[in-house]
Amino acid sequence: MTTSPSSARRSERSRRAILRAALDLCTERGYGHVTIEAIAAAAGVSKKTIYRWWPSKGAVLLEAFTDALVDATPFVDTGDIGADLRTHVAGAVKLLSVPPFGPAYAGILSELHHDDRLAQQLREQLVDPRVEEAIGRLRSAQDRGQIPPGADLPLAVEMLYGPVYYRHVLRKPIQDGETIATLVAHVLRALRAPGY
Amino acid sequence: MTTSPSSARRSERSRRAILRAALDLCTERGYGHVTIEAIAAAAGVSKKTIYRWWPSKGAVLLEAFTDALVDATPFVDTGDIGADLRTHVAGAVKLLSVPPFGPAYAGILSELHHDDRLAQQLREQLVDPRVEEAIGRLRSAQDRGQIPPGADLPLAVEMLYGPVYYRHVLRKPIQDGETIATLVAHVLRALRAPGY
Repeated sequence: MTTSPSSARRSERSRRAILRAALDLCTERGYGHVTIEAIAAAAGVSKKTIYRWWPSKGAVLLEAFTDALVDATPFVDTGDIGADLRTHVAGAVKLLSVPPFGPAYAGILSELHHDDRLAQQLREQLVDPRVEEAIGRLRSAQDRGQIPPGADLPLAVEMLYGPVYYRHVLRKPIQDGETIATLVAHVLRALRAPGY
Repeated sequence: MTTSPSSARRSERSRRAILRAALDLCTERGYGHVTIEAIAAAAGVSKKTIYRWWPSKGAVLLEAFTDALVDATPFVDTGDIGADLRTHVAGAVKLLSVPPFGPAYAGILSELHHDDRLAQQLREQLVDPRVEEAIGRLRSAQDRGQIPPGADLPLAVEMLYGPVYYRHVLRKPIQDGETIATLVAHVLRALRAPGY
């Protein structure tokens, strides 16, 4: 099926309105009180439109959060792996520190243990691609000799993200850039990166 | 007020029956469908008895989970800091891998973002004491020269627990002892522990 440019534009406009409405409702009411009905009303679309694209409110908010996360946590490559990881982690910490994104992500995570489909979507749409990108950035540092060959890059990513998640779910968010810098330095040292 | 030995025994028996009932219901129904009413009925006590001791079902399950966690994750001191951390982390991973404890803890974590009191209780009753114990075990290794003076021990604890939480909330649990051993070795290396 082909889609005309104007209908694609209309769809994209609806998609953005729906994601925006879902996030706004999350801020106003809290994740637990957001409903598909309310999202539809706020976005000016039918419930049917929403259900055509997403199976649940968790899926809507996952897409909204993923869009924001991708924007907030670019994998820059300035050539300085320490600086670039600090930039990346700081972006994630900052996004999680503010409504609607922090509470929205906490809400999404809280659904995972009883929503297998959402758990799979989260891994496929958000976690796995971000982990792959992080590994890619570490590998480019490895190619330049900044990280030794054979270093366990997937574990390094978990050691970076792990404390961010730990702090987020326990509501003890990381507060300052110094903590992030210390974390990044420790992870690079764990990989035996020269100079750390 | 003094408590007679026999009434203290009765209270302890009721406390254990309530915690056991809460965990059993969690396995049967899932965290979201556990109610104080059902816990009271299953434990053979009144709702009033439960509310006298706990403000919410989350608080009941937090106490049940904390009891189990303390039993499952002792801080042994064999003199080998690497082995002892592996034992400790393996205990936590194993506890989280099975019902009722894994799903119960996921349920508790999911309540934190809209229950300030439970969040505070979790930090005060579970997280802070366990972190202090972990720091204590690292400090005793430091006293023996196994970890350099000035190492950031609180960060080390977050680097150990972080990936465990990350994996738990994303439902990608750590599956094997080798992963735990690699994580522990990386954390000790990050602290510049000799031999790692």
